[in-house]
Amino acid sequence: MTTLQAGATIGILGGGQLGRMLGSAAAALGFDVSIYSPEKDCPAARIAAHHSIGAYSDTPALLAWAKTCDAITYEFENVPVEAAEALIAAGSLVRPGAKPLEVSQDRFVEKSFLRSCGIDTAEFAQVDTAEDIAQPIEQFGGKGILKTRRDGYDGKGQARLERGDDYEAAHKALNHAPCILEAMVPFECEVSVIIARDRAGESVCFDLPRNEHINGILKRSVVPSDLSETVTKRACDAAKALADALDYVGVLALEFFVLDDGSLLANEFAPRVHNSGHWTPEACATGQFEQHIRAVAGWPLGPVMRYHDVEMLNLLGEEALVPPEVLAADGILTLYGKRDAKPGRKMGHLVRRRS
Amino acid sequence: MTTLQAGATIGILGGGQLGRMLGSAAAALGFDVSIYSPEKDCPAARIAAHHSIGAYSDTPALLAWAKTCDAITYEFENVPVEAAEALIAAGSLVRPGAKPLEVSQDRFVEKSFLRSCGIDTAEFAQVDTAEDIAQPIEQFGGKGILKTRRDGYDGKGQARLERGDDYEAAHKALNHAPCILEAMVPFECEVSVIIARDRAGESVCFDLPRNEHINGILKRSVVPSDLSETVTKRACDAAKALADALDYVGVLALEFFVLDDGSLLANEFAPRVHNSGHWTPEACATGQFEQHIRAVAGWPLGPVMRYHDVEMLNLLGEEALVPPEVLAADGILTLYGKRDAKPGRKMGHLVRRRS
Repeated sequence: MTTLQAGATIGILGGGQLGRMLGSAAAALGFDVSIYSPEKDCPAARIAAHHSIGAYSDTPALLAWAKTCDAITYEFENVPVEAAEALIAAGSLVRPGAKPLEVSQDRFVEKSFLRSCGIDTAEFAQVDTAEDIAQPIEQFGGKGILKTRRDGYDGKGQARLERGDDYEAAHKALNHAPCILEAMVPFECEVSVIIARDRAGESVCFDLPRNEHINGILKRSVVPSDLSETVTKRACDAAKALADALDYVGVLALEFFVLDDGSLLANEFAPRVHNSGHWTPEACATGQFEQHIRAVAGWPLGPVMRYHDVEMLNLLGEEALVPPEVLAADGILTLYGKRDAKPGRKMGHLVRRRS
Repeated sequence: MTTLQAGATIGILGGGQLGRMLGSAAAALGFDVSIYSPEKDCPAARIAAHHSIGAYSDTPALLAWAKTCDAITYEFENVPVEAAEALIAAGSLVRPGAKPLEVSQDRFVEKSFLRSCGIDTAEFAQVDTAEDIAQPIEQFGGKGILKTRRDGYDGKGQARLERGDDYEAAHKALNHAPCILEAMVPFECEVSVIIARDRAGESVCFDLPRNEHINGILKRSVVPSDLSETVTKRACDAAKALADALDYVGVLALEFFVLDDGSLLANEFAPRVHNSGHWTPEACATGQFEQHIRAVAGWPLGPVMRYHDVEMLNLLGEEALVPPEVLAADGILTLYGKRDAKPGRKMGHLVRRRS
């Protein structure tokens, strides 16, 4: 039950914007931050006390780095499970551990795990070859979404299918990767639960944001979500069941589709701080980044009361090329320090108070 | 009229906690931060992309560093004026410039400058030798405070004197440094104005904190101050007059004694973000650190509306050795990453919402 003291070093696997914001939150609590990432120049490394450059598969480099850290966490869900396991085997304190990676990295395992926690999801079926598609597509009403089990994000690695489409061509376009077929869900809106759980098993949820995606990429989160108390409570209970089942320590996000009858279908979870929670540092007593660091440090969680209604807008690609002084006049601006504004790339976000 | 874009590098002279908090604010706006300081390991360097170690008097090192920066600011008022002037002469953009350093580093010059701006101060007299003390001490009602003109902070470099004391011994204890004698002020309370001014000359004040000192060190700031609107406006007008006279770009703090008849006497100003404004990031739409960075970057200032009443408590010396998880349960905690909790040393602060 390690409790970190000020001056301890928190290691973060991954060098992106989530690592940058986690790192700044850790520094504000008096910690030193050490980033491990394959990239030489990355957003998180530029705000950290230390940076080790190495592949996640380079176990000796990873273990040498880990010796300089008092606790280790990760900022993205595709850290290889083997890397987390090697760190734990060598005695490192890794929060939230290897299992959340293992479960969330494979859509079939993830959805099966959610169901084992009593959490509803859309219907899904395992697809190893194109021949596995015809039967479930009938069962799902003649259409479905084919998704790779691994490595999909922001709408990548997906194809919509209808009865009679060329299933083999669709599977080939996904490199014949192991897939799942998911039933289409006629949802009203999408929400997420951002939950923090501490080492003692206490957990707390932020107010739920309602999320709007464009081309599979989060564009806007709005709080409050306007869901009823009953539905909100069911979503939070589900997130708590998931966090408990994973014996999770830190912040995780569970995404839901909300149907017009108020029923909830879990889509996926992220074992990390989440884009749909980027409004929390500005609008709440404790933001999601500080909350995660508190949990990793073995500290009690902070209060999550929200001071005002709020919306968060992602700045994608060229949207961040608007002069920042213009952007900054329009809300609380965060930019991630990324060098290239590639199309659709998350470059920053704006948080706006709603009266 | 340079405007910095995201990815630009902001240089900060000084490596303390103010540089650390300024640097984190700059990083959140997408800037890279480069620290110049004499110390090898310092709080600000541990959150910065770059760190150059050098003496402020080492002009070649300073100028080499400056070439890597798009704009330069400072986090403490004792940066040598010559260093700022050398940077400006070599073409660097230094905000808020050299003059605020020149004025604020010498109490006699500072108080004279405040008066030239139409701002009242306590009576004061120049003291070069102990013989200069007797006459003003009579004029000030038989007592006064002897202060070194330079290098005093947090109550250091001061001595209270009364008629008949051994003036020579008192001056000797201050190493016969050039001094001023100040009249004692029977003040009701102390407040400060934290004002930001942008390159276009627009300025905005945060709500005034009422400040409580122990042994000359700030212990607590409370907002609102409970001053009347009239007195508050006079304080803000004075700060604006000072910032305008200095053609200031950035955040400065002007400290006042408030007398029981509501009159204000300026004590001193700090040409930088200020300890008595450490509640602003938690309680206001824009905090003082972001505000300073916006001004330095040539961006418009942000809104300073305050969301709730608040108090800020400094954690001095051993107070920060309370386990941080205990401190963090008691308010929003910031720790500065300092290695030694020397007595009276500012180690961190707590911000508490007041209902």
